[in-house]
Amino acid sequence: MQFHNNRSGRCGNELGLAQTAAGARPDGLLFPHPSNRATVKELFHRIVEDYYTWHGQCTGSPDTAPTAPHDAPEHRQGPGPGMDAVCRVVGELSGRLSHASVPWPSPMYLAQMTGDTPIAASLAYLCGMLYNPNNVTPEASPVTTELEHEVSDDLCRLLGYGARGWAHLSSGGHSANYEAIWIARNLRAVPQALAEHPGTRDLVSHHAPATLVNLGVDEVLALLDAASARDVREEVLRLAADIRRRGGLSDAKLLVARTAHYAWHKCVDLLGIGAGNTEWLEVDDGHRMDLSAVRNRVHAHLRRGQPIVAVVACAGSSGEGSVDDLDGILRLRQECEREYGASFYIHVDAAFGGYCRALCLDPAGDMLPYAEVSRLIHPAVLKQEVYDAFRALPRTDSATVDPHKNGHIPYPAGALAVRDRRLVSLIASGSAPYFGHGDGRRLPFGPHTLEGARPGAAAAAVWAAHQLTRPDCTGYGRVLAGCLATAQELHHRCRTRGVLRVMGREFRLVSRFEPDLNIVNLTVQPTQVLPGDDMGVVNLKVLEGLRADALADPHGQPWVSSNELASGDGASAGLHALRLCVMQEFDPPTLDMVWRSLREAISRQLAAVVAEPPAT
Amino acid sequence: MQFHNNRSGRCGNELGLAQTAAGARPDGLLFPHPSNRATVKELFHRIVEDYYTWHGQCTGSPDTAPTAPHDAPEHRQGPGPGMDAVCRVVGELSGRLSHASVPWPSPMYLAQMTGDTPIAASLAYLCGMLYNPNNVTPEASPVTTELEHEVSDDLCRLLGYGARGWAHLSSGGHSANYEAIWIARNLRAVPQALAEHPGTRDLVSHHAPATLVNLGVDEVLALLDAASARDVREEVLRLAADIRRRGGLSDAKLLVARTAHYAWHKCVDLLGIGAGNTEWLEVDDGHRMDLSAVRNRVHAHLRRGQPIVAVVACAGSSGEGSVDDLDGILRLRQECEREYGASFYIHVDAAFGGYCRALCLDPAGDMLPYAEVSRLIHPAVLKQEVYDAFRALPRTDSATVDPHKNGHIPYPAGALAVRDRRLVSLIASGSAPYFGHGDGRRLPFGPHTLEGARPGAAAAAVWAAHQLTRPDCTGYGRVLAGCLATAQELHHRCRTRGVLRVMGREFRLVSRFEPDLNIVNLTVQPTQVLPGDDMGVVNLKVLEGLRADALADPHGQPWVSSNELASGDGASAGLHALRLCVMQEFDPPTLDMVWRSLREAISRQLAAVVAEPPAT
Repeated sequence: MQFHNNRSGRCGNELGLAQTAAGARPDGLLFPHPSNRATVKELFHRIVEDYYTWHGQCTGSPDTAPTAPHDAPEHRQGPGPGMDAVCRVVGELSGRLSHASVPWPSPMYLAQMTGDTPIAASLAYLCGMLYNPNNVTPEASPVTTELEHEVSDDLCRLLGYGARGWAHLSSGGHSANYEAIWIARNLRAVPQALAEHPGTRDLVSHHAPATLVNLGVDEVLALLDAASARDVREEVLRLAADIRRRGGLSDAKLLVARTAHYAWHKCVDLLGIGAGNTEWLEVDDGHRMDLSAVRNRVHAHLRRGQPIVAVVACAGSSGEGSVDDLDGILRLRQECEREYGASFYIHVDAAFGGYCRALCLDPAGDMLPYAEVSRLIHPAVLKQEVYDAFRALPRTDSATVDPHKNGHIPYPAGALAVRDRRLVSLIASGSAPYFGHGDGRRLPFGPHTLEGARPGAAAAAVWAAHQLTRPDCTGYGRVLAGCLATAQELHHRCRTRGVLRVMGREFRLVSRFEPDLNIVNLTVQPTQVLPGDDMGVVNLKVLEGLRADALADPHGQPWVSSNELASGDGASAGLHALRLCVMQEFDPPTLDMVWRSLREAISRQLAAVVAEPPAT
Repeated sequence: MQFHNNRSGRCGNELGLAQTAAGARPDGLLFPHPSNRATVKELFHRIVEDYYTWHGQCTGSPDTAPTAPHDAPEHRQGPGPGMDAVCRVVGELSGRLSHASVPWPSPMYLAQMTGDTPIAASLAYLCGMLYNPNNVTPEASPVTTELEHEVSDDLCRLLGYGARGWAHLSSGGHSANYEAIWIARNLRAVPQALAEHPGTRDLVSHHAPATLVNLGVDEVLALLDAASARDVREEVLRLAADIRRRGGLSDAKLLVARTAHYAWHKCVDLLGIGAGNTEWLEVDDGHRMDLSAVRNRVHAHLRRGQPIVAVVACAGSSGEGSVDDLDGILRLRQECEREYGASFYIHVDAAFGGYCRALCLDPAGDMLPYAEVSRLIHPAVLKQEVYDAFRALPRTDSATVDPHKNGHIPYPAGALAVRDRRLVSLIASGSAPYFGHGDGRRLPFGPHTLEGARPGAAAAAVWAAHQLTRPDCTGYGRVLAGCLATAQELHHRCRTRGVLRVMGREFRLVSRFEPDLNIVNLTVQPTQVLPGDDMGVVNLKVLEGLRADALADPHGQPWVSSNELASGDGASAGLHALRLCVMQEFDPPTLDMVWRSLREAISRQLAAVVAEPPAT
């Protein structure tokens, strides 16, 4: 097996940029290309045929198509607008979208975490959408609920959660993260409820109060099973809710890296944890959560019997793509369990980076040895530390992983996965009385998700993409290795070819740190700082200029986004970096073209800034 | 203007059932029909053409289509699966969906709140989805964010919230309801924070503590504006969060009707209000919230200074379609404001019924006089009480209204609307640093929604549907009047033609109450009760039998769902009703056919139950 041929220069189709003649990019995903236009149209045809046949069966209309040409006048009898009005509105929409949409498929697009969507995912979404299934209950989605169960198995395998795990799709990372912390928050109150309930008190009487508040996840789940056996589980859970309501856990802390997604601010407010209980931890030079900061906080809390809702780690922080040291955090947890008999819940926000674990997986879902990963993809692509974090991930408690980010699926396709499916019973609610009940083999989705109605089309899209591109080293692993390699190449070019000469001055493009995944953060620095240089202002002006130019010429200019750097090397703190999110692999000519365009565009912005008279 | 012609018997196209020859149903919506198959295919063609042209511009591929036929061998060079594999997977999906999907378009489908999806909505969703916009920020959705602003205006007009209102789409009713109560919960802690903060204390010092905890919504908003003017608004909000965290509002109550959607159980747990603080109020014979129960609870709480998070009313309860007496609840609020100087937040769960307000609106969004509504649609279709509730709705504080229910849009398309856009600042969070900022004219969506990533395709679908079918009496009003009329016709047929003779016994189909909207609840009753008759068991068995038969023969049998009746007439309580959710208007022949099928299917189930030997 030999991935990643293009890095050796063997792939260089200059006409189609990063695409082969048939629309297959070097990473193996199939995107629109003139050569597959006819086939895609034919597939649309077939989907529409199937849909009309089904529709005719539903309504009792004759299911033979009329032979009249499509532009024959339609003798409408209804009072509403006719097909001519549909054509007008849809035509306007199609025109507006094709005129002004964000050019995700372009290699020059390096801003948000959205790339091109593979043909299979788009067609599957369309196909599912026409039948409008709702995965809240199999009664409303006999086909796509089954597909979501398969996707659930795939995602658990991807994250290493195994047979006890469970996953479901969500509208996005926000909901998935809320749901994880909802579980963790509810779990945290259970030990106290067990201690208060006369039917379970004996089960926890050997624990000191300080230990009890931070009992380990597996122990709490086992105790709940014991409560079930005594038929008091529901009472215990109600008591736990009451303890929370009374403010019994009003000082429970959530530990999150400072680089965490802005959704975490919403999360702690929504769930009533409170900003005051949220500890935003420092990050290190690589923008990973600083392990000594976690250690200090966790030890302090456990020693004092201060409850911890969860430690939230990132596997691919949204600003930097940094992967926290999950192995270190898990070792810290073991250490605490030995020292205090107390523990904490670990949630991983792998919304962006979760699919990258595919680089390390063989088709059975087992971790490849690091040497093998290196050999299969490219020696430098996956850092040992990132590999170690992915190897540790299966021991964490839950993880958000969004197919609509590095999975390349159209919105909406977020997901939450849990290591032990018993966890979701902590948020389970009675299902609506007008839904029937599942067959018991599979955990029903409706009562165990934060959301209710969920489009079955999203499950169809993820399922189809996974059918063609497996979430392991043969599929997504190869695709994402290409993105990582391209990000690293951009990082290295800054090091070796990052000098810009503008209006007689010399600047450098600085990549702030070697990327863990497929995001690069650049800033512009002068080789010699002159009096009056304010690089914070300069970088911000460069960013604003790039953004304005890209909006003015969407197909001709590079698109980047900005990222306010949390810390890292002291010099970065508070600086607005140019954030490049690489959602596709570049072959060498494309890389050269993008690199040249970036240099030129940044130089042009710098020239404008340098030429400005200093503010008075 | 003359709506609803088919009720006078003038429309009776028996070939196409409820459709005219060109696929326009009598209600004016356009659905798939053999006569528009060619046009729809042509539209797909055009959408795909536009998409490929855009894609070529993005990737630099030549944008002329090759002349090779679609089945020419493709000389793929990439390592991944080719178009043959895409065809196989998408073909399998299309086949499975067309074989086993739920027959929403069929008039025999009367189970969940999902109907047929109009062509325009499906095509617009597809068209939007291909460009994969994300309405979290206009940077990721320049076209569809603009469309969502138009939809926001439409939804505010539909609910009567006017120019100060604001609305946004969500993944569904769950999220929208969570968000509303998140706002209400946060608002409730603000007065106490104002009293504690040294910079605002004087603003509320004239209020007694018991009044302070339940200050009115508008007064709290005005006080927050005053805090803004003093530059302490953020401090006050942080203090409010801290008060909540400390359990300062641990006894705040949420008042919800017993018929409320099961999502409310999730909601009170998620937001930390707690099941113990949730008061499930009785309903009256029409399954509307019992106003005297609300009055008793609210007076008791306000008198004692017990905080009320919100009173949640329904405009279309999900089990029964009942519309609560919003006018009565609002008069109660005024009464309390006079008596105690205290008030409460009113949220309306109009997820199902919100679009029915269109029956009462002229194209400018103003309420038509009741006599005019009666004259325009049909004298009996809209009850005076329901009209009064819709007239009162604009004075409530927020409402959930789901385009993917009575708006006939594909999933996911829920929505939340607020009367005063300042309300959403109570949950606002800083936006991600890598997003740019809006132009100030419009409230940006990302920082003001519970969810983050939201598919722009959903906004495109709602926008397109609203372009063709306005949310007023000329558009959705006409569509939904037809659904209501059909539901009422089914109700009346039970009264007049509901006798079933089975195995020598006589039973009656009983519609439990005259429906407010388009849901009918039926039970089966024997004319003479015999010893051993357990009608709870009989109704449940009939339901289970109907469900099994529909699954076995999706296109030949009626589909109903079950509903456990909360109360109403004493005899109903706890009974499992056959719930018919009418998502389309029937012309007379269709109505006869559905009625006959229902009678036959129920009689068949009854025969099986009656023939069973009694349980020993």
